[in-house]
Amino acid sequence: AMLDVPFLPFCALLGALGVSCVAFVGAWCQHWRGGFALDGSARTFNWHPVLMVTGLVVLYGAAALVYRLPSSWSGPKLPWKVLHGGLALAAFTLAVLGLAAVFRFHNEHGTPNMYSLHSWLGLATVLLFSCQWVAGFGAFLLPWAPTWLRALYKPIHVFFGSTILMLSVASCLSGINEKLFFSLKNGTTEYKLLPPEAVFANTLGLLILLFGVLVLGALARPSWKRPDADSPDSRQVPAPLWAHPG
Amino acid sequence: AMLDVPFLPFCALLGALGVSCVAFVGAWCQHWRGGFALDGSARTFNWHPVLMVTGLVVLYGAAALVYRLPSSWSGPKLPWKVLHGGLALAAFTLAVLGLAAVFRFHNEHGTPNMYSLHSWLGLATVLLFSCQWVAGFGAFLLPWAPTWLRALYKPIHVFFGSTILMLSVASCLSGINEKLFFSLKNGTTEYKLLPPEAVFANTLGLLILLFGVLVLGALARPSWKRPDADSPDSRQVPAPLWAHPG
Repeated sequence: AMLDVPFLPFCALLGALGVSCVAFVGAWCQHWRGGFALDGSARTFNWHPVLMVTGLVVLYGAAALVYRLPSSWSGPKLPWKVLHGGLALAAFTLAVLGLAAVFRFHNEHGTPNMYSLHSWLGLATVLLFSCQWVAGFGAFLLPWAPTWLRALYKPIHVFFGSTILMLSVASCLSGINEKLFFSLKNGTTEYKLLPPEAVFANTLGLLILLFGVLVLGALARPSWKRPDADSPDSRQVPAPLWAHPG
Repeated sequence: AMLDVPFLPFCALLGALGVSCVAFVGAWCQHWRGGFALDGSARTFNWHPVLMVTGLVVLYGAAALVYRLPSSWSGPKLPWKVLHGGLALAAFTLAVLGLAAVFRFHNEHGTPNMYSLHSWLGLATVLLFSCQWVAGFGAFLLPWAPTWLRALYKPIHVFFGSTILMLSVASCLSGINEKLFFSLKNGTTEYKLLPPEAVFANTLGLLILLFGVLVLGALARPSWKRPDADSPDSRQVPAPLWAHPG
């Protein structure tokens, strides 16, 4: 009880941290990596980190926290489901565009795709995310999905929700690390001499990590869960008319 | 209820996976990276991945799961606490030796320490782990720690327990990725051509990830938690004599 933190101020902090992550990754690519373009050059690649951090980490985190808003606990559930699924779809769209950016860049330069552990990890994250979205849509948004299926699938969806966020953060961290080894070598100050760009991008990595850990902590916190979260998904059953006066 | 998995067979699977992680990282360093030595060469560095995977991931995971063993739920708690703290201390010791291996290697070659995001992440993991161990010892093993302090600190210890495991896994993944970029360049087959070593070490990364996700899932699973886990740490109060017949 002494450690009770109210959810909404925490969300404001999280929002500021998420905006900082996006600002940091954008500033890194703009200031040190030459900015953005769609010409297949390294400036096309620069969309990759920006879209991945914005989509797979920040928007994904926002989508995951929708049901922690106390205002989502009463009244009709459908608008909150649409918000949750819509934010997740926006996150997924950015992630696919982020993949397109790096594949375009590799293909333009004759660089093989999908060889590094970072790429395996990142693709596994996006594939799991696509399964999660489709299964969530089928089980929770299609009105004819049976209640027993929703009850069965819900803990699985919740578990993979946190797991995918962890994978996203691990993918971002390994990608930033890899990119710094690529960029900071002959011709520019070596990574190992810790030039300002390295300090800046390492700090970006720690901010992403902090954002991810705080979202996972918020998701796990029992007092922030919807009070009936462990009961079957009973609100899907249309409530009797007298339950909605007015 | 349809998804109820018994804990002990799951543990056997996890044990096999943990042994595989250690075997894979050992085989990687032995077969492709020249084996092990204490002479400050790259063969000294090779202790770094082996000790980190064994300590921060596998032994740490075993320590984290001690209280999920149903046999720990009844009878005196002290032996289980000693087992939990002992496994964690063994994990921490290996991690410190793993740090010593990489610092020795860097210093021997005039390479700076602590510049990459991997190193920042890894050191943050070990530092958090040291705080976690000391605070856990002070709050749960010192017999004079007050009950209110134990009750207050317990959810924090549990939260950081999972967080540190996530950081460990992220550190390992970024480290394997980084090491492959270092090792697989001019002179040997490039990483981007995906030689057998790269496939093997990428697979090691995915095994470590799977191990971490399964441990985190087991920790989060409500039905595997000690039934009274949310109550204050009342078993610390000596039970009346008649509670221990014989």
